[in-house]
Amino acid sequence: MTMSIGCIAVWVSDLERSRKFYCEGLGLDVISTVQTSEVLEVIVGRKGLGSQLMLAHRIGEEGAVIPSGFWKTYLSTDDLTGDIAKAVAAGATIDTEPTFMEQFNITIAVLADPDGYLLELGQLH
Amino acid sequence: MTMSIGCIAVWVSDLERSRKFYCEGLGLDVISTVQTSEVLEVIVGRKGLGSQLMLAHRIGEEGAVIPSGFWKTYLSTDDLTGDIAKAVAAGATIDTEPTFMEQFNITIAVLADPDGYLLELGQLH
Repeated sequence: MTMSIGCIAVWVSDLERSRKFYCEGLGLDVISTVQTSEVLEVIVGRKGLGSQLMLAHRIGEEGAVIPSGFWKTYLSTDDLTGDIAKAVAAGATIDTEPTFMEQFNITIAVLADPDGYLLELGQLH
Repeated sequence: MTMSIGCIAVWVSDLERSRKFYCEGLGLDVISTVQTSEVLEVIVGRKGLGSQLMLAHRIGEEGAVIPSGFWKTYLSTDDLTGDIAKAVAAGATIDTEPTFMEQFNITIAVLADPDGYLLELGQLH
């Protein structure tokens, strides 16, 4: 099993405000930017140093109340099936079965940990 | 300015259950364990690879409802005064002024980002 935490994601109400704050204000770098049909994501941190935080914004919800500050922890794996089985045996529940995301050439599954926090497991192809 | 994200912290209701889940279930390592008078903290991740997640538990609150899933992002810096000034200029508010923590030989300040998420900045001595 080779699992590592990619990033941890929080919802923000104004993505450009947050990007400026974390990058220009705190001096962090944009590691990557991802856009899906529903969510815009900017991952900040320092390349090769420390942890990474995803600033995530639901498209079309400018100024809306954020339902939950914490979104998910993203974990990279090279053995998705095996890791899901071990996590479930350890008390995880399955939120989303493994699904191939053609856009990113990755298979993703979503679990919930014992507190209900979402864990997104991804295996690149 | 040399700022990097140390870890991101979430509250958990049962720290031992969470430690087992993240380490034995997901295969992550315990990076460090910290105990203060009020909080027990277990930081999980992979040494030298990826991000780190702090599992934090308020002592004496077994089984209690967690007030907020997301706690804070911990940032390491070598210029605390300068980084606070830049963060405030970029829209942060000061939650806790810089305070020397003798126990850890570190000066800590707590800011709130534009969404109100707590940022703990620490500079080692």
